[in-house]
Amino acid sequence: MKDKLFQKRISIEQVEEGTELAPKFDEQGLIPVITMDVHSKEILMLGYMNKDSFELSIKTGEAHYYSRSRKVIWHKGKTSGLIQKIREMRIDDDQDAIWIQVEVEGSASCHVGYRSCFYRKVSQNANGSIHLEFTEKEKTFDPNEVYGDSPNPTIL
Amino acid sequence: MKDKLFQKRISIEQVEEGTELAPKFDEQGLIPVITMDVHSKEILMLGYMNKDSFELSIKTGEAHYYSRSRKVIWHKGKTSGLIQKIREMRIDDDQDAIWIQVEVEGSASCHVGYRSCFYRKVSQNANGSIHLEFTEKEKTFDPNEVYGDSPNPTIL
Repeated sequence: MKDKLFQKRISIEQVEEGTELAPKFDEQGLIPVITMDVHSKEILMLGYMNKDSFELSIKTGEAHYYSRSRKVIWHKGKTSGLIQKIREMRIDDDQDAIWIQVEVEGSASCHVGYRSCFYRKVSQNANGSIHLEFTEKEKTFDPNEVYGDSPNPTIL
Repeated sequence: MKDKLFQKRISIEQVEEGTELAPKFDEQGLIPVITMDVHSKEILMLGYMNKDSFELSIKTGEAHYYSRSRKVIWHKGKTSGLIQKIREMRIDDDQDAIWIQVEVEGSASCHVGYRSCFYRKVSQNANGSIHLEFTEKEKTFDPNEVYGDSPNPTIL
């Protein structure tokens, strides 16, 4: 099945100018995925897929990622209910990055509780020093209620 | 200087809920960057920055990446003229991904000649087979004219 879905990478012309899906997975077998809210056009998260989760995403129409911290395929929203239905999937010129536009039930996507994982912007003070400024004032949900005792996926 | 710009990662609370810029660079010293056109909200590219190019991007307000194929800091647009002026920069929950919104002079960003690097979508036929469908009909510029004999950055 996998051989039929993903073609072998043969030439730059095939990869850049062709119509065959021939993705490049990195040394860890992963490809980065930009996840955008199809309505607001806000970036919700940057995730990673391996071959199996990429295949599952295409076949089910729901975003499946590979969790690098937990080392498992991760059906996004299975715990939180915040399933991401894929409305459009694009791949870039050299086919080593994916951009999906998704519909999210419940309008939140981040394990910290915010709508987007990108809830802070990098701001510069008059003196040139840098800090982060929150762009979302309130959390959309309480992560403790949703995830309970699950370990935090953030790695220092 | 670098120590002042990027803080040490001390705790999950600091990284996720704090206002300090404490990015996580991967084993290659890189952090992925989602680049969006600030007006159309289209994703133009997924690039990577190392510490130095991240710092240059903040200080100059113009996107600098690290080219993984050429292994150099890459001031986007220096050859093509398609400079990306950063209008907003965000960082994600665990600070291992960046999202920038940019203004591009000339409205093209992709070395293949298209407006966006994501010029093909993944489409499914009635029989379930997968192909790529072009979303841009014409190239914005002729890469041969702009880049001449520069080696193609795509790696198979």
